Amino acid sequence: MPFIDIKVIAGVFTDEEKRRLVEDVSEAAIAVEGEALRPATHVVITETPSGGWAIGGKPLTSEDVQAKRASG
Amino acid sequence: MPFIDIKVIAGVFTDEEKRRLVEDVSEAAIAVEGEALRPATHVVITETPSGGWAIGGKPLTSEDVQAKRASG
Amino acid sequence: MPFIDIKVIAGVFTDEEKRRLVEDVSEAAIAVEGEALRPATHVVITETPSGGWAIGGKPLTSEDVQAKRASG
Amino acid sequence: MPFIDIKVIAGVFTDEEKRRLVEDVSEAAIAVEGEALRPATHVVITETPSGGWAIGGKPLTSEDVQAKRASG
Amino acid sequence: MPFIDIKVIAGVFTDEEKRRLVEDVSEAAIAVEGEALRPATHVVITETPSGGWAIGGKPLTSEDVQAKRASG
Amino acid sequence: MPFIDIKVIAGVFTDEEKRRLVEDVSEAAIAVEGEALRPATHVVITETPSGGWAIGGKPLTSEDVQAKRASG
Repeated sequence: MPFIDIKVIAGVFTDEEKRRLVEDVSEAAIAVEGEALRPATHVVITETPSGGWAIGGKPLTSEDVQAKRASG
Repeated sequence: MPFIDIKVIAGVFTDEEKRRLVEDVSEAAIAVEGEALRPATHVVITETPSGGWAIGGKPLTSEDVQAKRASG
Repeated sequence: MPFIDIKVIAGVFTDEEKRRLVEDVSEAAIAVEGEALRPATHVVITETPSGGWAIGGKPLTSEDVQAKRASG
Repeated sequence: MPFIDIKVIAGVFTDEEKRRLVEDVSEAAIAVEGEALRPATHVVITETPSGGWAIGGKPLTSEDVQAKRASG
Repeated sequence: MPFIDIKVIAGVFTDEEKRRLVEDVSEAAIAVEGEALRPATHVVITETPSGGWAIGGKPLTSEDVQAKRASG
Repeated sequence: MPFIDIKVIAGVFTDEEKRRLVEDVSEAAIAVEGEALRPATHVVITETPSGGWAIGGKPLTSEDVQAKRASG
């Protein structure tokens, strides 16, 4: 406690970025909770298939999001 | 807001059906919420492995559900 | 199957709107899945406390969203 | 109702163990709920990629957890 | 790991039944996982507002489910 | 995208701490994703009733966790 579920589209983030996401989100949460809760703090990634995530009714593929990221 | 998570068994729906699910569920929700919330309305598909979904204690495979769908 | 979880901020939607959300989202999904899956189609609302939902790092209250909805 | 989501790291449990998880967790819940709710009791497995689950800020791979299980 | 989320309608189960649900579901899962994973096994209850859970398009209240349970 | 769900036991964190959790977790995620995804980054808090969260089969109350936090 807490349990933090990070939902992402599969294929958008590299393994290295996914590792940084779970590590850095853990540290951000623990800084608020306090070190006593570190052992009970779980942070996980859940992946959604490309094309299976719509924003405003418009489905997005991994490539759509990669292009968006690249646009800075 | 809202965030809508559609959990399904992998292998039951085609990519085309998954696209229609996220689009049509988005439109149904936005019709209630109002257009102002369209940009913040996220609808996603999360997949469960075949055999990893039990109803009443009985695990179902994609094939079980396909047969059920075909039975009309 | 499917199981559809609609996450919203508490206090934004009236009971009537929440009823319409679960009903209309059910019908939109069943129209794609087929009537055979109607009895196994679950659609639920999960509520987040006001101030407990951030978009782009900015926490939103029910009032923020109500004002947004009213702005049309 | 209820809907029970069992989140695990992919590659830790065999298909047989996943089947037993959804069956045994179903029976444990139904024993409390009562038989009348059996047809509406859904238990599913959601998988997280290996390396995508951190405890206390430390990401775990399937192999880490397998070694832990083997240590008894 | 695993993390088990038990979604229920608020007002259906007593505190005592909710305690038994998280305890008995924990034991059922640990019997499959093995004792080595006991310290990392989290089982939680998430509550949905009465009227906010539809099966087959029909919203259910706590009273509907209580009547169903009583019908045995 | 991403959507980040922070599950906590109700009554453990103050409103101020919950605000800091959603803000700081947002910034930690955006630092990895990139600023282009800030507008689509949602971070929310979902609360579990006190006594409705078991670790290793042992249910925890808000007071249990507060005592743990205080123990430093």
